[in-house]
Amino acid sequence: MGKNLTKRSEDYSKWYNELVLKADLAENSGVRGCMVIKPYGFAIWEKMQAGLDKMFKETGHENAYFPIFIPKSYLSKEASHVEGFAKECAVVTHYRLKNAEDGSGIVVDPEAKLEEELIVRPTSETIIWDTYRKWIQSYRDLPLLINQWANVVRWEMRTRLFLRTAEFLWQEGHTAHATKQEAIDEAELILKVYATFAEEHMAVPVIQGIKTESERFAGAVETYCIEALMQDGKALQAGTSHFLGQNFAKAFDVKFANKEGKQDHVWATSWGVSTRLMGALIMTHSDDNGLVLPPKLAPIQVVIVPIYKGLDQLDAISERVAPLVKELRSKGISVKYDHRDTHKPGFKFNEYELKGVPVRLAIGQRDMENNTFEVARRDTLEKETVAADDLVARIETLLEDIQTNIYEKALNFREAHITTVDTYDEFKEVLEAKGGFISAHWDGTAETEERIKDETKATIRCIPLDGDTETGKCMVTGKPSERRVLFAKAY
Amino acid sequence: MGKNLTKRSEDYSKWYNELVLKADLAENSGVRGCMVIKPYGFAIWEKMQAGLDKMFKETGHENAYFPIFIPKSYLSKEASHVEGFAKECAVVTHYRLKNAEDGSGIVVDPEAKLEEELIVRPTSETIIWDTYRKWIQSYRDLPLLINQWANVVRWEMRTRLFLRTAEFLWQEGHTAHATKQEAIDEAELILKVYATFAEEHMAVPVIQGIKTESERFAGAVETYCIEALMQDGKALQAGTSHFLGQNFAKAFDVKFANKEGKQDHVWATSWGVSTRLMGALIMTHSDDNGLVLPPKLAPIQVVIVPIYKGLDQLDAISERVAPLVKELRSKGISVKYDHRDTHKPGFKFNEYELKGVPVRLAIGQRDMENNTFEVARRDTLEKETVAADDLVARIETLLEDIQTNIYEKALNFREAHITTVDTYDEFKEVLEAKGGFISAHWDGTAETEERIKDETKATIRCIPLDGDTETGKCMVTGKPSERRVLFAKAY
Ligand SMILES: [Zn+2]
Ligand SMILES: [Zn+2]
Repeated sequence: MGKNLTKRSEDYSKWYNELVLKADLAENSGVRGCMVIKPYGFAIWEKMQAGLDKMFKETGHENAYFPIFIPKSYLSKEASHVEGFAKECAVVTHYRLKNAEDGSGIVVDPEAKLEEELIVRPTSETIIWDTYRKWIQSYRDLPLLINQWANVVRWEMRTRLFLRTAEFLWQEGHTAHATKQEAIDEAELILKVYATFAEEHMAVPVIQGIKTESERFAGAVETYCIEALMQDGKALQAGTSHFLGQNFAKAFDVKFANKEGKQDHVWATSWGVSTRLMGALIMTHSDDNGLVLPPKLAPIQVVIVPIYKGLDQLDAISERVAPLVKELRSKGISVKYDHRDTHKPGFKFNEYELKGVPVRLAIGQRDMENNTFEVARRDTLEKETVAADDLVARIETLLEDIQTNIYEKALNFREAHITTVDTYDEFKEVLEAKGGFISAHWDGTAETEERIKDETKATIRCIPLDGDTETGKCMVTGKPSERRVLFAKAY
Repeated sequence: MGKNLTKRSEDYSKWYNELVLKADLAENSGVRGCMVIKPYGFAIWEKMQAGLDKMFKETGHENAYFPIFIPKSYLSKEASHVEGFAKECAVVTHYRLKNAEDGSGIVVDPEAKLEEELIVRPTSETIIWDTYRKWIQSYRDLPLLINQWANVVRWEMRTRLFLRTAEFLWQEGHTAHATKQEAIDEAELILKVYATFAEEHMAVPVIQGIKTESERFAGAVETYCIEALMQDGKALQAGTSHFLGQNFAKAFDVKFANKEGKQDHVWATSWGVSTRLMGALIMTHSDDNGLVLPPKLAPIQVVIVPIYKGLDQLDAISERVAPLVKELRSKGISVKYDHRDTHKPGFKFNEYELKGVPVRLAIGQRDMENNTFEVARRDTLEKETVAADDLVARIETLLEDIQTNIYEKALNFREAHITTVDTYDEFKEVLEAKGGFISAHWDGTAETEERIKDETKATIRCIPLDGDTETGKCMVTGKPSERRVLFAKAY
């Protein structure tokens, strides 16, 4: 399969970069760190958006839109929040360009300086809570369940397509509640939504957990997360849901009158997933031949390639294919019939493998005579010959099988790459030799966490939400540990 | 109907501003000129997006995403383009904030100055054509038919919600073609798509035409537009589609090899509609009681209000309503059953009138006994009693009727407000006394156009694409005129 794609075993990172480019998903732009999402990549993102948006709406959330700019003074109102974002902000200082007086070209007009600088939103808590102050007076205005689909900017120094870019696309939910418990319930509900989306739509198994204090979102009381495992043994944080306590309500003075008429600050959550999910999707399933896409997110679920000599044969095949295309579409299956006469079937086979199309049909002269199709599935690369009468049913089954199979495969890999260790030596050995998640005891201090990170580059990905409550001793300091946590090197 | 809404006849502009706020569509934010689009307003915009996106895809276009930032040098490459946008740009000059050394707070870090300033996109021709250079080598790569849904920023000094804001949401199509004619055909195709969307979805009649040279998009060879007429007699440009010639291909050196292997510059179009459409929608149909929404764009098409005393009666009504809600939803009709016990029916009636819900059902004790519903239509405010058995069919008819009726009403208004004049005195009289479009002869010069604008504030909205080719004499200079053009005061 000559796609000139570097093998994963040779250089996983290079394989990823090449795949993103060759599969027409995204590329770097002329603006440092900002990507162009190409039509094929964007079509996958659109399917992610549609799936998530439906789940948000089904759980009572509405979409809205808030300004891209945040006045510097707003960002500064919540102390740990500004601390977290100040170092990587795009700052707007002027509002006009002009012709240079020396004729050297276009320059910033020094007379058009803003009184207060504006930050291109890195996240929208501050501008949104400034707005919520106007919207919330009484318990009757709560809960407020709002989501926004938007672009955000964080001035990252080392960027990689989808995984870490200066500008990225995301959704950010921002909710307001009358009680602490209600806000915690919301943060946990969204965590479940994210986990369900990752596992059922993306076919990416995730571990649900909470972050340690040092990995928490800037301004949060608790950060919930879903963590996925890539094929190279590195973890990827795929989504976060934050319980914000009353931090932003206090910073922006958002109070409500409760049923008894007493004033109290509002409780908050925020939560987001981004185009980073594209990176998780690509790295979880794809292979040395290219992308492997879950049928639920594939822009093209079925491609049909005619094999023919001369336009007469092509016409006959096209006639046979037309009702099939119609029937598949009527069942909501997206299908492309690639009858381009400018490319050979082998070229097309390679292209659709590279692009991860789940099911490929081919039809040649023998198939025409036997009334059959050759059916190839992308995940296992298996082929079979199917009678035309059985084809639609077979395709429906196959799409479900592929969705399930790639999830199971990823889950098996993940399960095989969670290693329990009890000593720091063992920890370092496993981290280097095998990778994956490492379940170990930790004394709960930021100092030990920091030391492990400095010495091994592994971070605590999360304290899992599952029922494990085995106590023990910290692998580094020997101090008491309440439970095991999951470490990994991470994207 | 005590909604405290200023009457249109008293102060149209005030009526509009109040309506946008009271109907929960949008509001001003803490950032000068940037609006917050509230959930109800955003739900209408989402329906517009969905309708347009479907039409773009059906005509072969794909979505993609390009960076929000444009390097200053890119913007400068097409001379008339930068001339058009330089005066209203948000300019990013720095990429970091820091704590002030004197402890006075957060300041821009002077050491984090960008080598080249970045402009927050006012439109994306330049960054996109810089990208297209990499994507286009041969005629096989053409046509390239791409659309982007995005936010853009133009630093307007006088802003109004939806009509003119510093940041707005829009779609921008950018296409590349092998021949001049193909690009012109594309620009005209999109004009038809926009006109169809405005008339069939928004129920807003539009005039299709081309702009004069002075009103053309900065960098375009020809600008096509659709122009709508608001109830106060002012025109509103609702969408533009530009034939860009080879201007951007030359500025960004985008060439392709044609079938004969010869290199040529690519031909281009760009086209866009924005959240400004919300302004057109509101001002075309709404009345002194509030919004009037076309059923095709109404987030809630049918609202059901129970009229009851005590929870026993409410329970009985809810039981009657449940299967109705289910049946309406199964037919794709969006319905809300407002059983809030905290508000009186009269309050709810007012609220849904204000929000423009097309059909309102009420059900009280007599209706329960007679197995009927009271049905009120928002456009005419007419009420009728309908037997439960006939209700779903009646609602389906009503939704169609309302869609047609408000279009016809707007069309009649528009037709009654196109006035043909032959002298400049008459022109000024009609403009002041009646408003609307004025069809008049003009000598084709920018000087005369400018003079008319200075003296009357009316601009040439467009040279209509209809067949009228009556020649005549310019109403101002008496010089020969090839055909009548349409003037109006405009938003
Ligand atoms: Zn392994
Ligand atoms: Zn009139």
